[in-house]
Amino acid sequence: MTVMTEQGDIAGAMSRVARVVEATLDSLLPSVPGLEARVVEAMRYATLGGGKRLRAFLVMEGAALFAVPEEQAARVAASIEMLHAYSLVHDDLPAMDDDDLRRGKPSTHKAFDEATAILAGDALQARAFEVLAEPETHADPQVRCDLVLALGHAAGSRGMVGGKMIDMAAEGRRLDAAEITRLQALKTGRLIQFSAEAGAILGRASPELRHALASYGAELGTAFQIADDLLDAEGTAAETGKATGKDAAAGKATMVAILGIEPARVHAEMLAAQAVARLEQFDERAAGLRALAGFVVTRRS
Amino acid sequence: MTVMTEQGDIAGAMSRVARVVEATLDSLLPSVPGLEARVVEAMRYATLGGGKRLRAFLVMEGAALFAVPEEQAARVAASIEMLHAYSLVHDDLPAMDDDDLRRGKPSTHKAFDEATAILAGDALQARAFEVLAEPETHADPQVRCDLVLALGHAAGSRGMVGGKMIDMAAEGRRLDAAEITRLQALKTGRLIQFSAEAGAILGRASPELRHALASYGAELGTAFQIADDLLDAEGTAAETGKATGKDAAAGKATMVAILGIEPARVHAEMLAAQAVARLEQFDERAAGLRALAGFVVTRRS
Repeated sequence: MTVMTEQGDIAGAMSRVARVVEATLDSLLPSVPGLEARVVEAMRYATLGGGKRLRAFLVMEGAALFAVPEEQAARVAASIEMLHAYSLVHDDLPAMDDDDLRRGKPSTHKAFDEATAILAGDALQARAFEVLAEPETHADPQVRCDLVLALGHAAGSRGMVGGKMIDMAAEGRRLDAAEITRLQALKTGRLIQFSAEAGAILGRASPELRHALASYGAELGTAFQIADDLLDAEGTAAETGKATGKDAAAGKATMVAILGIEPARVHAEMLAAQAVARLEQFDERAAGLRALAGFVVTRRS
Repeated sequence: MTVMTEQGDIAGAMSRVARVVEATLDSLLPSVPGLEARVVEAMRYATLGGGKRLRAFLVMEGAALFAVPEEQAARVAASIEMLHAYSLVHDDLPAMDDDDLRRGKPSTHKAFDEATAILAGDALQARAFEVLAEPETHADPQVRCDLVLALGHAAGSRGMVGGKMIDMAAEGRRLDAAEITRLQALKTGRLIQFSAEAGAILGRASPELRHALASYGAELGTAFQIADDLLDAEGTAAETGKATGKDAAAGKATMVAILGIEPARVHAEMLAAQAVARLEQFDERAAGLRALAGFVVTRRS
């Protein structure tokens, strides 16, 4: 019963954040007239109306620890969701993972076309950086530069793109646990870590508190990725809104493939507990972040 | 004779800038170990060792007007060249222009593969923004934020990507001169304009001088694009290092197609003269920018 209640709370809190961020994204990506309207519609299609908004939730909850105004946090959350959305659009392309389904609807290159999907992803990335640098995001330009730097590091060849490259280069090869951990730390971990850290950057927190949130984010990210792989191994397309069983079919390197389902689940739960322990310096305002750690390893979609 | 000498001077000055920027790019994109090395090598392949470095030259010459240290200008020049290189990598993809040849060598998806080319372009864009936000680019974070904002505007759906979308949406349709002018202002003009403006941003120039350079850049960019289309219509692959005659074959909307070759050439020359007139407030230190305007409309490759 306790667990059920906590799950209900976190789901409600995430829904509330999702609504705030949806409205922010909508206003940051306005439709335009002219022949370029198509790429803007594709950007909106890829970004609006879907997803758990895990990264946005991390930003908003982290920012609340430092009493950052919600409008500022929502802009950073929207920026990271744009970056994440671009990465999914490019991931789904035929030359990449070749996925026709995303969040239960046709992926962007299916709803539009490949060229438009490539362009929409490109423009979403540019917009993500731009939003961080806009004066509305924070009065202090040093804070805005810090955000741009952290996103650049998380998104580029030393982060997400580097992780995707390892993932592709490793297909058909056998990676060990250390290599898979590094792959996933780069591919999904860095951006989740930045999401958890962004509130501390916005709040000009001490290096110690920023580091605590970064560590929380890194461990949460790994737990989240293993849970995602467990869903792929066990879930159905109806539950997850995307094709499942693809990792095994593609011979993809995952912790689930290396450890087996039950040990992987235990490992994810331990990581989630470790993430929660990182929050000991925060009071009850970190309740959302604590509950989230439980949520990511028990979610069914 | 005078013209020949000027051309010789500008070619020499551009070569010197190209060497400086090449060294800066090399140091900003170091090779890495690990499985992600492949995407970094693709980034280096796409960026190093080629191109006229027109955008870099604009940055460096513009910055020199305001006595900006060369290392700072070279970083901004390198950032813009990375952004430009990413756009070429994605342009050449089979789903976009499907070009196998770029700067006389196989395009990135041919030298590597499509997935790696998509990722390399993505990571180059991230790195371009990151470099602008790094403290080495300027001591004042407000200047760095201004650079990030200007690049975001030039690169995204209101700039380069928007222009590419119009270009794709217009294939097979007949655009009028105003529509083509807008298409090209977005597709290539905005980034060239930002290149011309960047020195003024770095030098914290007055709005008036920054505006003069932006106008120069916008007109130069249009002249450059028409010259490019003239080369496509008239040049040979041996001269230009890329496939030619493709615009007409694809029914692409260009000013050359609308106006005809000679009138288009006259228009480009008039724009170049107009660009030079924007520089009247600058002394002989703007000689390079003045010579460049002549160069872009007379170049043969």
